[in-house]
Amino acid sequence: MSGLFITIEGPDGAGKSSIVKRLSKKIQETTATPLVVTREPGGGEIAEKIRALLLDPIHTEMDDRTEALLYAAARRQHIIDKIIPALKRGDIVLCDRFVDSSIAYQGQARGIGIEEVKAINEFAIEGQKPDVTIYLDIEAEVGLNRIKDKNSNRTQDRLELEEVAFHEKVRQGYLTLIEEEPNRFVCVDASQTEDEVFQDVWNVLEKRV
Amino acid sequence: MSGLFITIEGPDGAGKSSIVKRLSKKIQETTATPLVVTREPGGGEIAEKIRALLLDPIHTEMDDRTEALLYAAARRQHIIDKIIPALKRGDIVLCDRFVDSSIAYQGQARGIGIEEVKAINEFAIEGQKPDVTIYLDIEAEVGLNRIKDKNSNRTQDRLELEEVAFHEKVRQGYLTLIEEEPNRFVCVDASQTEDEVFQDVWNVLEKRV
Repeated sequence: MSGLFITIEGPDGAGKSSIVKRLSKKIQETTATPLVVTREPGGGEIAEKIRALLLDPIHTEMDDRTEALLYAAARRQHIIDKIIPALKRGDIVLCDRFVDSSIAYQGQARGIGIEEVKAINEFAIEGQKPDVTIYLDIEAEVGLNRIKDKNSNRTQDRLELEEVAFHEKVRQGYLTLIEEEPNRFVCVDASQTEDEVFQDVWNVLEKRV
Repeated sequence: MSGLFITIEGPDGAGKSSIVKRLSKKIQETTATPLVVTREPGGGEIAEKIRALLLDPIHTEMDDRTEALLYAAARRQHIIDKIIPALKRGDIVLCDRFVDSSIAYQGQARGIGIEEVKAINEFAIEGQKPDVTIYLDIEAEVGLNRIKDKNSNRTQDRLELEEVAFHEKVRQGYLTLIEEEPNRFVCVDASQTEDEVFQDVWNVLEKRV
């Protein structure tokens, strides 16, 4: 694998999508290496169908373990269809959410257990971890208020309708992962302005791309 | 759990569906205990959507591990929605395929590994094994010829289009499981006439229901 695999993580409202957009532009201006921008859960046709099933607000009766297995299934297909072929070609892959999201959301916040969710994801990824993970850190309440802001034109999905306590647990899950793998993670304060956040992210990535 | 959990297993063409139909009728004639007849993968709305995704012949690019995770996800939801509530009420649950199918098909025949597929299924079922599993044993070629028989009005799904060698591995997977758990399995020779197969199955189940 000669490519560079970058993932962007963080609780809802941390500003991942905006940073992914700006990073894509900047990477393309900086290097001739092809860039693949993708998101989790998603990728090809099968993964997108699983995503639709996961995010549909009518599925309120979905069990937490079903959800975790569906994310792992979508992730597996995503890796096989898109991520591994790109890394083999030597491309840069920029992915909005990956395994760490499952561990923080399902393992920690929904209470299934970090080790159990890691195990089913290891079945899915077979060791294919990101080279670098940008973690956009924000307090649960600040992140949620951003989402609910009237200026925001996003529609809320099922997961975003959960309460502050849940999102605080998500953040704690991420912080546990960062303690375990400090070399892979880059922690950025996402309560700053978008320009400041982007500058912090770019300071780290510029030398890698 | 005061109910009785019966599963029916076997390679394609072993005659599971016919036996399930006859068994349902016989159980209802024999006992006043309510009977729930179900199938894998399936159950409620979410599990049925996952089933549709799995069996759609257009998804030829589906990775083996994606498939195994989707089966585990459907199974989880099936257990939560249907099987556990029925067993808690004291009902008899008759299920066409369960965990053993995943282990035989994905673990053994597709070569992922029996232990790995067992592990993701343990995540899904959390110890909820059947009380008794009827295994309808048939040689791969005999089973496949039954499916292809012109008198059959079934349409072939994606899995049934696989070749004889694959189905022989499926059978070997089942036989390995039976060696590991001889007390749970009842092995019936499915190359006999339907009446004979049914009689063998009923001889075992009559005293349990």
